[in-house]
Amino acid sequence: MIRIYHAKILTMEKGREPFDGEIWIDGAKIKYVGKEAEKEAAKITWKRQIDAKGNLILPGFKNAHTHSAMTFLRSHADDLPLLSWLNEQVFPYEARLTPEDIYDLSKLAIMEYLTSGITANCDMYLTPDTIAQASIDCGYRTVIAGAVNDFTQSVEQLEQWYKKWNQEGSLVSFELGFHAEYTNQRKTLEGVADLSKKYHAPVYTHNSETRSEVQKCVERTGMTPTAYMDALGLFEHGGGLYHCVHMTEEDLEILKAKEMSVITNPASNLKLASGIAPIHRMMEKEISLAIGTDGPASNNCLDMFREMFLVTALAKYREGDAGVVDGEEVLRMATVGGARAMNLTECDILAEGKQADIIMIDLWQPNMRPIHHLQKNLVYSGSKQNIKMTMVAGEVLYENGEFQIGCDPEFVYARAEEITRRIFR
Amino acid sequence: MIRIYHAKILTMEKGREPFDGEIWIDGAKIKYVGKEAEKEAAKITWKRQIDAKGNLILPGFKNAHTHSAMTFLRSHADDLPLLSWLNEQVFPYEARLTPEDIYDLSKLAIMEYLTSGITANCDMYLTPDTIAQASIDCGYRTVIAGAVNDFTQSVEQLEQWYKKWNQEGSLVSFELGFHAEYTNQRKTLEGVADLSKKYHAPVYTHNSETRSEVQKCVERTGMTPTAYMDALGLFEHGGGLYHCVHMTEEDLEILKAKEMSVITNPASNLKLASGIAPIHRMMEKEISLAIGTDGPASNNCLDMFREMFLVTALAKYREGDAGVVDGEEVLRMATVGGARAMNLTECDILAEGKQADIIMIDLWQPNMRPIHHLQKNLVYSGSKQNIKMTMVAGEVLYENGEFQIGCDPEFVYARAEEITRRIFR
Repeated sequence: MIRIYHAKILTMEKGREPFDGEIWIDGAKIKYVGKEAEKEAAKITWKRQIDAKGNLILPGFKNAHTHSAMTFLRSHADDLPLLSWLNEQVFPYEARLTPEDIYDLSKLAIMEYLTSGITANCDMYLTPDTIAQASIDCGYRTVIAGAVNDFTQSVEQLEQWYKKWNQEGSLVSFELGFHAEYTNQRKTLEGVADLSKKYHAPVYTHNSETRSEVQKCVERTGMTPTAYMDALGLFEHGGGLYHCVHMTEEDLEILKAKEMSVITNPASNLKLASGIAPIHRMMEKEISLAIGTDGPASNNCLDMFREMFLVTALAKYREGDAGVVDGEEVLRMATVGGARAMNLTECDILAEGKQADIIMIDLWQPNMRPIHHLQKNLVYSGSKQNIKMTMVAGEVLYENGEFQIGCDPEFVYARAEEITRRIFR
Repeated sequence: MIRIYHAKILTMEKGREPFDGEIWIDGAKIKYVGKEAEKEAAKITWKRQIDAKGNLILPGFKNAHTHSAMTFLRSHADDLPLLSWLNEQVFPYEARLTPEDIYDLSKLAIMEYLTSGITANCDMYLTPDTIAQASIDCGYRTVIAGAVNDFTQSVEQLEQWYKKWNQEGSLVSFELGFHAEYTNQRKTLEGVADLSKKYHAPVYTHNSETRSEVQKCVERTGMTPTAYMDALGLFEHGGGLYHCVHMTEEDLEILKAKEMSVITNPASNLKLASGIAPIHRMMEKEISLAIGTDGPASNNCLDMFREMFLVTALAKYREGDAGVVDGEEVLRMATVGGARAMNLTECDILAEGKQADIIMIDLWQPNMRPIHHLQKNLVYSGSKQNIKMTMVAGEVLYENGEFQIGCDPEFVYARAEEITRRIFR
């Protein structure tokens, strides 16, 4: 067992404030979390005891929407209008990726998640099998959402992957998903809805990211994307919708009624000039919220601290009210909200029996001082630099700047350079 | 002399791309910057040789607007409407600060600047003498702008400080400044204009941060704040204006004509729901731009990476065009633009004879890979975590997470906690 003591602990249980205490990890799970237990601890033979030195322990962040392997496009095509970016700089180069490329490029992203205290990601990309393998080899937790569209993946493959990658005890799970309503024929969407019904499974997709996407759907179907997808039966077993920038009140009512999670991607929505999602309105309606970085081609970094600040700061700007979207609520979205959206309810809070997906925040840094309010320090002034340790399923994968992911970081960097040289030669 | 070799070097000279090379530092100044010079280097006895291992060297960031000592308010009063924040949570507690408090609280901010690669700040706060002392004791570079208003500081003090803190070779300089047009009687502003004329000195102040501030000035004077201050003769010798969120075309014309720098503060403007400055429009008019974090009470962190991303991402959102405000231009604002705004022209680029205010960026991190475009990596995916070294005037003040600022970081943290406990008891 591993013991982390002399810690400040933020369990993320509703209403529970941070307290001084310790946490014990037995295999992949949390065995004890509570006040200092020096006496009891003395009776146990520990695999490792970690003196937290007053630093903060909390559940890892959940990156609820990303396209990890798009790391190869980072800084390749910034400062371009959306359509030239997508059609001229993204699609043609993506077509050159091999499944093995996606394996290594996903690892590069996993390393970045670890530096930002992100202990699980929800990935939507081309080759679920090599994405899964990258996570497993790193000891990392990934939920893969299907990415069916008219050009790649199929409903049949979706079902195969759903059965293959949902084994008990695995770090990888698979959820039904498709790219977006506008990249799929109605028949395909009906096929996904049938699968959702068959397995009582949630469904994941992009939704209402841009204004033109919504307009075109209305012209084509007479409905907003949200209403259209709901009418096709895609929301009957919950799931998650990425972006949700341009939403009507009726759209929000549907999400509330169907218990869908909204996964917001503020940095990407700004950088691609898509807009600002109505987060305050969603909170008023008590819609479940989570946060995603989106892929590194549109963000370009995979950093939950940047996203958390943006969620609240952009809402304040949007509503013209510095009082809306409290920082504590944002921290909840990045942890518990993400776990709910990703169907990872065993990874949401720190409590006995939960998965040990844990991060340690370095409070001995100037940006964390003074300590008026730990949660707000995290959201408003926290940074990757404060991530002292990232643990997934009881294994330390990142600590004091060093990775323990079963391979040499330099090898991953070299592969990334090699892949991009080949693709862009 | 210090030699940094095996580096990628970005001098920030206009149009010059990064190259492989080395840089020599002699005392406070740069002696050589260019291609690898192994042979010549072998003849010299070095105080220290640093193998950069392929990492990036560039001029340090300039934080062109901040209120450093407001660190004591970090996370004290977030998520509040602007006026309750200012009147109930800021002003009453500021009144309890002693000059010695401001000394230590400024040091806390300096430490945070160093972690973000910021090598100089332009500080506007209550007690110039102890702010200056904190910088000098840390070996840090600070431009102090006067903060005259109807309640604290006076035109007479401004002149005294101007003469006292502008000694040749000092790390500290002082510029004429006042808090804002709305916190000063016309007579005071005329006094500042007289000083500006007397010394041919630039002037610094807050300008058009909120919509209501502009409206009230128009009601009171018949002019926008920009036009009003210009009419009073405050812009005759240049200077810098903070925020500039709500600006007319005529206002921008004035700034252009008077060669005033705009210092934008995007994070603070979002968090306090003030708005988004028209950066793209300013660039079209070729107005000189710089970036500031504003104080830690309104941001709450002092991180140039966050600000750089926001400058471009918010402009893209504001204009509805992902193609505007190129990342490379933003990097220019954070370095050369800041140096110009702060009257630190000896600290703008890497070249022989310039001040050695230099940072090293760790490229061996996942968020910096692959390397398609170094400048865009910095702006779009860079983070404090990438700051490997920060050097001010030839002295390494921060390296691999360790501070060398003439005092123990833990002492500064302890003082910050002690001060806040006293003030908020």
